[in-house]
This record gives sequence, structure tokens and C-alpha cells, in this order.
Amino acid sequence: MIWRELHISTQKRSQFLNISTLVSSEVSKSGIKSGYCLIYIPHTTAGVTINENTDPNVTEDLISILDKIAPREGNYQHAEKNSDAHFKASLVGESCTIPIIDGRLALGSWQGIFFCEFDGPRQRKFKIGLAGEK
Amino acid sequence: MIWRELHISTQKRSQFLNISTLVSSEVSKSGIKSGYCLIYIPHTTAGVTINENTDPNVTEDLISILDKIAPREGNYQHAEKNSDAHFKASLVGESCTIPIIDGRLALGSWQGIFFCEFDGPRQRKFKIGLAGEK
Amino acid sequence: MIWRELHISTQKRSQFLNISTLVSSEVSKSGIKSGYCLIYIPHTTAGVTINENTDPNVTEDLISILDKIAPREGNYQHAEKNSDAHFKASLVGESCTIPIIDGRLALGSWQGIFFCEFDGPRQRKFKIGLAGEK
Repeated sequence: MIWRELHISTQKRSQFLNISTLVSSEVSKSGIKSGYCLIYIPHTTAGVTINENTDPNVTEDLISILDKIAPREGNYQHAEKNSDAHFKASLVGESCTIPIIDGRLALGSWQGIFFCEFDGPRQRKFKIGLAGEK
Repeated sequence: MIWRELHISTQKRSQFLNISTLVSSEVSKSGIKSGYCLIYIPHTTAGVTINENTDPNVTEDLISILDKIAPREGNYQHAEKNSDAHFKASLVGESCTIPIIDGRLALGSWQGIFFCEFDGPRQRKFKIGLAGEK
Repeated sequence: MIWRELHISTQKRSQFLNISTLVSSEVSKSGIKSGYCLIYIPHTTAGVTINENTDPNVTEDLISILDKIAPREGNYQHAEKNSDAHFKASLVGESCTIPIIDGRLALGSWQGIFFCEFDGPRQRKFKIGLAGEK
């Protein structure tokens, strides 16, 4: 199992950052031909999801739906008052696993991997785990 | 790591298809005794979840709750106007991992694996990854 | 792949139980230095998530948001009338994967692993899968 850590900056409070190219590049460097790639987010107000990578309006709509479910200004007990961001992180999840087949990420035609910022802008990081046969 | 691709057809716009038998059969064929099975959905308006496999009203209720959160007719920016389906896919997620113990899928007593269609009916596919000791 | 099964008791209908110490202890016992740890919940009205481990108000707020989305008393078709719990289980998910780096769980500074009870109190169990190099 190979683990890499990458660093990114987010620019808004809520933002879906396409990290597919960053991840693909680590897959190529690893030389793994058949296996899988695990993305892990070590934060509690950010997550990761896979969704459409073509029309940026899709991820904007996802952010709007999430804001309707868990509004920024809610009646939260948590002193930091950012429980909406914690909730959104648990909804999309802290990790995802993508197949590696024939030496490349086997994403579907329309799929991209998105780092989901819910309490930015901030400096963030994530881990990429790679396993399989070379 | 063994990867298989299976094809299915969905019949409705929103539908939870029980794929447990299809997956179990691939586990048996693989001969793996201890390891895990990864299901990966390469679509952006479909996902996968594990939930009750006995009363079909459970998955019907899940579809109703999802429709209340992200209605079919929302004020979406995405030109295809199916952002509800993209959202539901990210909520349930694109992958799940199930233990293989003693040569079989170690699902709980009431658990089934469901392919979650949110923008059907369509021809769909999914990947099954198998790893472990024979 | 090493699989362990642990047993816990929950005290309330909805409760986020911090299981990080239980999981860390299994990682130590395994002797694995680089790999990953998979948590799998074999129930359909409970799940697992990773979120803030410091202020207990965060998980209380998560429970409140989940209750708003899927109320305990809904117009559910399922005879047991606990479809809210099934929905919440699918929202947080049945499994999560955490990196093992330098012989320990590589959780972020504020992250804890939570067993999410949505239809307790009950006796529950979960599986821990461990893989990697010693």
C-alpha cells in the first residue's frame, strides 16, 4: 500500500474542487496496473464525492441542495456554529475508492473526483492510497 | 485484484435493484475465502447502498424521503434539470465494500446490496472488485 | 486480510458512539504498519461515520439535522414504521476505510470514528477488517 499526501487551497465556504487530474497523476506514477485507489479526507468539515465533471452547474446545484437541508445559520448547539459543514461532510463521506484497471483510474465517462469544501476558504490536504499489482 | 463488469436494466426513474445474488455469485466464482468485495458504480445519476432486503416498502420509503429532500422539479441550474438524481447519487455514494469471510459475502441477516437508479429507466453497468486469500 | 467482530450496546434511539479507541486497539494488535482499516456495520438501521471527536454537540447537531430530514413519525409504508432509521443508515453509509500509516490509524486531528445508532437502544456489532504490510 502506497500512501501520498497532497495539499490544496479552497477559495469559498462551499466548493467542489475537481481533483481527478491530481489523483490520476499519482496512479500513473505508482505503476499499478490492476488495483484500486483510495481517497481519504482527514478533516471534519470537508469530504469527497464522485459526480459529473462536465457542467459545473451540477456541483453548484449539489451545494444548493445541501444548503437547503442544512442551512448555514441553523439553531446549532456546537459553539463554532458550523454544524452544517460537519453534516455535509458526513453526507458525502470522508473516503472513496476507485478501481484501477489497465494502469488507469476507471472513472465512468462523466465522473470526476471532487474534494468537497464546506467550511472554507482554507488550506486542506488529503491522502491517496494505492494498492494492486504492477 | 479481480475486476468484473456486470450489466443491468432499470425500469423506472427511481428504483433500488437488489444485486446481492449477482454479487454473491461472483464471490463464489472467485474462490476467495477471506477478503472483501468492492462495488463501484461508474455513473453520476446512480449509486449503490446496503439496506433491508426483505420488505420492499423500505426502499420505496427511502425513495420517497430522497424525493422530498431533492425534488424532481427543482430550481436547478444544470441544463439537463436532473440535479436531483446527481444529488441522490452522492448521498448514497458510488461504492461500497463488503467483507468476504469463509468464502461468502458477510452481509448482515437483513442486508441486501442495492443498485440505486435515480434517472432511469436505462441500461446500466457496475464493477465488482474482489481481493483476498483463496 | 484480518477480520474481527466487536460487540457494543447503545443506550438511546439515536446515538453516535465513539469507537475510535476500540478500532485503534485492533490496529495495534494486528502489527500492521502500512495499510488500511475497514469498518463494516452489518445492520440496516445503524451505520458508521467519521466526524468531530471533541465537542459532543457536533454529533447532537448531526442527529437533529437527520431528524429534520427524516422524522421519526413519517408517513412510511414499511410496517415497522422505522424507515427514518433505514434512511439515516444509507445516508451515513455502512462502511468506512481509514489509512494505517506508521503502525497507527491516520485519523485527522479532530476526527473520531462513530458507530451511528438510529433505532436503539440495542445490542449491536461491527466488523473491523485490517490489511497491509507488517
